[in-house]
Amino acid sequence: MRDLPFTLPALREAYAAGASPKDVIAEVYRRIANVNDPGIFIHLRDEAEAESEAESLGAFDPAKPLWGIPFAVKDNIDVAGMPTTAACPDFSYDPEADAFVVARLRAAGAIVIGKTNLDQFAAGLVGVRSPYPIPKNALDPAIVPGGSSSGSGVVVAHGIVPFSLGTDTAGSGRVPAALNNIVGLKPSLGAFSATGVVPACRSLDTISVFAMTVDDAYAVFELATAYDPADAWSRKIPAPPLSPVPPALRIGIPDAASIEFCGDDVQKASFDATVARLKDMGAAIVPVDFTPLYAVARMLYEGAWVAERHAVIEDRLRDKPETVHPVTRTIVEKALPLTATDAFRGIYRLKDLIRQAEPALASVDLLCVPTMPTFYTVADLEADPIGPNSRLGTYTNFVNLMDMCGIAVPVAARSDSRPGSVTLLAPKGRDSLVASLARNLEVVAGRTLGATTWPSPALSQAPNAVSVRDDEIAIAVCGAHMSGMPLNPGFVDFGARFLGAASTAPVYRLFALSKLSPERPGLVQVGKDKGAAIDLELWSLPRARFADFLLTIAPPLGIGSVLLADGTAVPGFLCEAIAGDETSDITHYGGWRPYVQSLERSQERAVAVKA
Amino acid sequence: MRDLPFTLPALREAYAAGASPKDVIAEVYRRIANVNDPGIFIHLRDEAEAESEAESLGAFDPAKPLWGIPFAVKDNIDVAGMPTTAACPDFSYDPEADAFVVARLRAAGAIVIGKTNLDQFAAGLVGVRSPYPIPKNALDPAIVPGGSSSGSGVVVAHGIVPFSLGTDTAGSGRVPAALNNIVGLKPSLGAFSATGVVPACRSLDTISVFAMTVDDAYAVFELATAYDPADAWSRKIPAPPLSPVPPALRIGIPDAASIEFCGDDVQKASFDATVARLKDMGAAIVPVDFTPLYAVARMLYEGAWVAERHAVIEDRLRDKPETVHPVTRTIVEKALPLTATDAFRGIYRLKDLIRQAEPALASVDLLCVPTMPTFYTVADLEADPIGPNSRLGTYTNFVNLMDMCGIAVPVAARSDSRPGSVTLLAPKGRDSLVASLARNLEVVAGRTLGATTWPSPALSQAPNAVSVRDDEIAIAVCGAHMSGMPLNPGFVDFGARFLGAASTAPVYRLFALSKLSPERPGLVQVGKDKGAAIDLELWSLPRARFADFLLTIAPPLGIGSVLLADGTAVPGFLCEAIAGDETSDITHYGGWRPYVQSLERSQERAVAVKA
Repeated sequence: MRDLPFTLPALREAYAAGASPKDVIAEVYRRIANVNDPGIFIHLRDEAEAESEAESLGAFDPAKPLWGIPFAVKDNIDVAGMPTTAACPDFSYDPEADAFVVARLRAAGAIVIGKTNLDQFAAGLVGVRSPYPIPKNALDPAIVPGGSSSGSGVVVAHGIVPFSLGTDTAGSGRVPAALNNIVGLKPSLGAFSATGVVPACRSLDTISVFAMTVDDAYAVFELATAYDPADAWSRKIPAPPLSPVPPALRIGIPDAASIEFCGDDVQKASFDATVARLKDMGAAIVPVDFTPLYAVARMLYEGAWVAERHAVIEDRLRDKPETVHPVTRTIVEKALPLTATDAFRGIYRLKDLIRQAEPALASVDLLCVPTMPTFYTVADLEADPIGPNSRLGTYTNFVNLMDMCGIAVPVAARSDSRPGSVTLLAPKGRDSLVASLARNLEVVAGRTLGATTWPSPALSQAPNAVSVRDDEIAIAVCGAHMSGMPLNPGFVDFGARFLGAASTAPVYRLFALSKLSPERPGLVQVGKDKGAAIDLELWSLPRARFADFLLTIAPPLGIGSVLLADGTAVPGFLCEAIAGDETSDITHYGGWRPYVQSLERSQERAVAVKA
Repeated sequence: MRDLPFTLPALREAYAAGASPKDVIAEVYRRIANVNDPGIFIHLRDEAEAESEAESLGAFDPAKPLWGIPFAVKDNIDVAGMPTTAACPDFSYDPEADAFVVARLRAAGAIVIGKTNLDQFAAGLVGVRSPYPIPKNALDPAIVPGGSSSGSGVVVAHGIVPFSLGTDTAGSGRVPAALNNIVGLKPSLGAFSATGVVPACRSLDTISVFAMTVDDAYAVFELATAYDPADAWSRKIPAPPLSPVPPALRIGIPDAASIEFCGDDVQKASFDATVARLKDMGAAIVPVDFTPLYAVARMLYEGAWVAERHAVIEDRLRDKPETVHPVTRTIVEKALPLTATDAFRGIYRLKDLIRQAEPALASVDLLCVPTMPTFYTVADLEADPIGPNSRLGTYTNFVNLMDMCGIAVPVAARSDSRPGSVTLLAPKGRDSLVASLARNLEVVAGRTLGATTWPSPALSQAPNAVSVRDDEIAIAVCGAHMSGMPLNPGFVDFGARFLGAASTAPVYRLFALSKLSPERPGLVQVGKDKGAAIDLELWSLPRARFADFLLTIAPPLGIGSVLLADGTAVPGFLCEAIAGDETSDITHYGGWRPYVQSLERSQERAVAVKA
């Protein structure tokens, strides 16, 4: 148990092999004692109580995807039975219920270990703005732990729990990930309910996920994402599974004039190396002027939105200012002179800046940025509590204001052995796309996980899915549209891209429809006992052209769902089952291509005989 | 010419028959002189100049849909060559260019006659808050003309021009329509560019259209709607042609507890009569609790959004307060004590109220409300300049805050001969749906137009709307996507438009697929001897959305070619013929709707038996 990597696959494997959750919990507390950092938890759950919850899980239930998985929760998110402080002891209250997201994860079998430290009221990216002991960076105690989700980042990096919840308004779910060599997944706004979360900027907050690997972070994302009618900011955000990354992605990076490393050439070299890797993977790199994005970023703390932070602690700041961390107070007090008119002017300026950035952003599938321009030490922050914090947010502050999703992912360590990290960003709803690409990046990084010596995961664990872009639709073709067949050139003219060969589930029969010209097959689902697997090809088509393409399809053919051998379904050619005088069953050929080839051979023979 | 109704079809017909635009312009000025209301125009164009522009149009060009059509523009919208005052003489400036929307209409051949009076800075619904002479209500000078687009409403009601542009933030494009017996079309926010418009509440403003008929208002809507990259608030809003109204629309009205007529029983009777007409047309009337909508409405002038008005005239209010109308000043000064924190709290409250209203609104296709609860006289406003104005906004103030589109349409005159008017409202993007239904309402109203004796249009003039546009695809639906069925709202959200009822060729059988939820039918082609004709509905869908829609279709359903009774084929829902344990043949019902109705009847019987 002592050597067991705390990742979801490793823990699941251990449980499937008979490990007891009580032992896993005991190991969690052993690791906590071993790390011996009193700054990580504001409230650590009583060990006996956690073990008792573990025991109450009963027998291993593989249907519960987080069965027996320990996790930690940032202390601005409610967990019933533990106080919520937001790192302000005087603010502390005892919530009656779990936050919506915590409840979902517990329902999936996960066990809360404790509430983690943070920059007070989630205002900061450094992790040193807390009245509690400051958590130590898991890799180098001289460096700041990152914030505001400081404890949640550090606790995962040490391998104490496989994942934790943070929150992310300005970058609090990404910067600690970069500083501690772990993954920080920042969902699209509204994907995770805010019910039971202490707001920072209510219109821009989201719960976030820290984990050692993209797979683990995304697994939590899939489980936690759900529409919550009780939270007015909740939205229906898709959470499709991770999939192989489409080839030829267009990836925007800050252009030479606007990229910013605050003089850190080692960070620049690390980012350049990642960009080179992305090129190797087939991506087209598109330099983008980040000037409007930086202007958006500055609005978060220097503009109207600081009033959202003020809305949370207005009474406290007036009546008990001494209970607020001095740096936090300095920041939030900037809201005092701001009028409602200023607030709307800020909203106008944001709209204008987003519009300015729009053409460039529309020309790429996603953005890749350094998660932070450089590193800062605890001493740096003692000397200047605000400046370094602002600079850490260079590539994070604009993200929620621009309604993007993102994931911070470790890349190869820098030449000075500090952790490397980039963040992939995309418009809201593309959480799966950025995580899928992040997964490829972490695999090629060949790193160790967090502050542990555990190796990074292998790509072979990738789920088998069809790689289509958001603006495309996959289509299974089984006849005249396949490569080399008569209708394929027209298909390609519609923008069709070949994805790969595949096979149907063994529930179909294939008929030759001799009445159509050129001759085509009809794929008819007949059920398990009567069907066979039929060869087909997977192609993608631009969604914008799909209706035009459909109009070229002759009856009795149409587009429906085709069941593949791997159990997934994709849109594809189907055939109405009309009583068929003009059809012959060619299922035994296994596909259209062998049938056509056999026809050709017999025609050749006929020609030869004639000659 | 003197008797020519100034509607688009009448003018087009006159032009096609050889009338000269110069003569039409001369008639415009004759009517202006005849009406003799110095309050209508703030700037009336020099007649000779307008006639010269008319002459420069050359020969009649039927390709220009507004060739030779005179129109008036509210004086908070730029027209090159005329000052923009926003009804504040000291604010006046000479714009260099036409507003984006004005430029589009002029490019289509329309001729601007002048700039119309308004409640100063578009703050008001009454039309009496202007330092210029107050326009007189076109039907009854004792009644307020309505505002803020007072001149634009009155000028159309007199038949001086066939349409005018207003703006609408709180109801300024609807209330004057109700008060002057004309149509007021308030587009979805962002459909009309705001480039060249003096803001009122910049996040909530839209240009609007006044016209005598829905057809004319919607024709202008189609021409003016375009995405403007230079306006950060511009959005891509569909503008499909008017079409027959789907049967079985679900129409929400204020429920008995929340409906408000300020004691005006005549207005109540008028509204009740309209609701009865909607029922006659086949609509299902759904009472909705309007409490959260009223709470939203109050936020516009009593909450944070008044700060948007303040943003427009902050300097003026401080440096030259005497140049601001006293009532406008009282209203806008309410912004002074509001902080940025108050503004964000307002945004939170709005989100919460929208969420509260969501379930009820999601259960209907559109809302029908009285455009205003009652009438007010100029004397009423002299006695209390604020209260009656607020009450006039009961059914209008919430609309833009909730991102709805709407159209105010005259219905039969009230029993006291004052004009009747209702407003149809729907979520943004459904401009075509509300206008299509409004068209049916105006036809059955059998009224005269505005303050004229011209008769209302007949439905037979309807364009051949059943045709599918080039950017659309026709789809035959035979089950849960039909109007009134559970999947229809989502279908409409994809941009689907009802084209008409139809029937298949008699070669199909219909099966109930009980495994799907909601239950759906499968249409299977079986050939002439074994099949029957099945009822279906034809809808159109934007081609650009078709792929997205296809991905929502569950197997065993798909899209193929459906053979219609008239021998043509259209894309439509088909069913794979899988051997069906979970299917039952319901062909004998002749369609899905009769089958569902029979199920409902038997359920009702079962409940009755139990009771």
